Amino acid sequence: VKISEIGEFGLIAHLKELVGPPADGEIWIGDDTAVLRAPAGTILFTSDLLIEGIHFDLDLIKPEDLGYKSIAVNVSDVAAMGGTARRALVGMGLSGEVEVEWIDRFYAGMRECCDDFGLAIVGGDLSRSDKLIISVSMLGNPAGRLFVQRKGARVGDVVAVTGTLGASAAGHLLLKASATEPEALIKAHVRPAPRAKEAAVLRRFIPTAMIDVSDGFAADVGHICEASEVGVLLDASALPLADLTGLGLSSGALQLALSGGEDYELCFTISPDRFEAAAAAVLEQTGTSVSRVGEIVDKGRGRVLLIEGDEEPLLAAGWDHLRV
Amino acid sequence: VKISEIGEFGLIAHLKELVGPPADGEIWIGDDTAVLRAPAGTILFTSDLLIEGIHFDLDLIKPEDLGYKSIAVNVSDVAAMGGTARRALVGMGLSGEVEVEWIDRFYAGMRECCDDFGLAIVGGDLSRSDKLIISVSMLGNPAGRLFVQRKGARVGDVVAVTGTLGASAAGHLLLKASATEPEALIKAHVRPAPRAKEAAVLRRFIPTAMIDVSDGFAADVGHICEASEVGVLLDASALPLADLTGLGLSSGALQLALSGGEDYELCFTISPDRFEAAAAAVLEQTGTSVSRVGEIVDKGRGRVLLIEGDEEPLLAAGWDHLRV
Repeated sequence: VKISEIGEFGLIAHLKELVGPPADGEIWIGDDTAVLRAPAGTILFTSDLLIEGIHFDLDLIKPEDLGYKSIAVNVSDVAAMGGTARRALVGMGLSGEVEVEWIDRFYAGMRECCDDFGLAIVGGDLSRSDKLIISVSMLGNPAGRLFVQRKGARVGDVVAVTGTLGASAAGHLLLKASATEPEALIKAHVRPAPRAKEAAVLRRFIPTAMIDVSDGFAADVGHICEASEVGVLLDASALPLADLTGLGLSSGALQLALSGGEDYELCFTISPDRFEAAAAAVLEQTGTSVSRVGEIVDKGRGRVLLIEGDEEPLLAAGWDHLRV
Repeated sequence: VKISEIGEFGLIAHLKELVGPPADGEIWIGDDTAVLRAPAGTILFTSDLLIEGIHFDLDLIKPEDLGYKSIAVNVSDVAAMGGTARRALVGMGLSGEVEVEWIDRFYAGMRECCDDFGLAIVGGDLSRSDKLIISVSMLGNPAGRLFVQRKGARVGDVVAVTGTLGASAAGHLLLKASATEPEALIKAHVRPAPRAKEAAVLRRFIPTAMIDVSDGFAADVGHICEASEVGVLLDASALPLADLTGLGLSSGALQLALSGGEDYELCFTISPDRFEAAAAAVLEQTGTSVSRVGEIVDKGRGRVLLIEGDEEPLLAAGWDHLRV
């Protein structure tokens, strides 16, 4: 069944089923706005736009994975503030040619991510569009009055990152080359795991600054750097590179780790006397490793400096959506 | 200067200037999420997607007007819940060819609407896109614990609407025919006035159901009807038609009023003993007229019935974004 056969209102009724019944005292799909209960006086509010041909290629990603990823990237943003994602609106621009079955699979993926991280889809907007457009807005709760900004890194702080870097970009290269394995690398790209549980452990150790790795590690650590008005000295040999041996990719593991992007790992800074305990707690409670990759320094304010044999400045070669 | 010359991060820095400094204790543009202070335990949450070629044609609307309208349509949704819009995220999909001056004018229009209705833009997301895409998400406060749903209309209630109907659709027809007047009709289309002040007065008189007129009056009153599980009997002769005499439009005033859409008037139902006082208060405090256009009835559950000479069923011929 095509979307054009059931129409906008038929689709809304269908989505209401897919989303499930609203939480007590809340109103979700079917009115002018969603009505939500906010427990705290502070709200985290974020949105992300995913566009066919720019952020994803429908030939390279299954609808379930695209759904999962659409929610995951926003959960990751909320986690990077040290918060917990709670409610989402999903706007979609769709061609009438889209099959309702595609929507069902896309929503199943979104629901799976929502279930994994304890949040719910509460509404959205539908529009006609030649290319598929996905716009997710999300509300989250901070941990009490605490939230972790990009601003706040201090000279002497440890720079650390969860998991590994470069797997998502490697997975993307593999997909474009029609490879179907290694599965772990492809999964890192099509179904990234936002580090919400890791953030919930980390925030108890009071990171001074935090960001999720979406543009590319060098660019993202650069954002912390600029916001905090400090420099960062990275040790290339300490970066937790994804294992890409024997894959014959056109880019090396270090390059993909630094500028690949879409890893959705957490990059944070923390006082040196808290780092070991924080890393141990994250590993123990979530199974995710945390690597010490550098230090906040007084020199090169706003710049990322890389030590690779000799110290040399690194171009923050991340992803800029608009520059040619 | 083109967007491609300043890049995503140059544009973010520029937008930060355009948006102005954050409210006390809040964090707006420049981190993973916005951090907001919510005064109440209940939040209204809505989003709208506007796509070039579907919702607007850049040859027919100035960037200031498009900016104003992008905010206004969401303010209208919050008003239709009886609430007050407070904070917005603006996602944009842009070609690198867009001029920074265009963005400045677009943001000036958004800011003007924000200033008119007491809200602020607090962040968003940027992406590359061939066609311009605008995604606005908005948070609003309800009036205390009260909000007005589509559900709630009772048999015997008066059906009423603010302002006039059909002006926006007429303005759209005129623009497509390269007409530049009557200005009031064109303005109704390119720079709709959301009825936030009217909603603030109305909610004191406890409307039983409310919706904003976006899909078309017949379709929108139909949404109240379905949600409330009642029928609606409309008096065609009582509809506040926009004055289209002498314009030679291909559609008549009644047809445009019923199915034109994008009027952003408030359609509401209210107990008959409260209607006169509510209408008088809205007129006195906002200058906007309120017309009694029909009655909620027991028959034709979920249907809109139109009295025009003889009573006959009316097809709810509103705008369906996805049906062919």
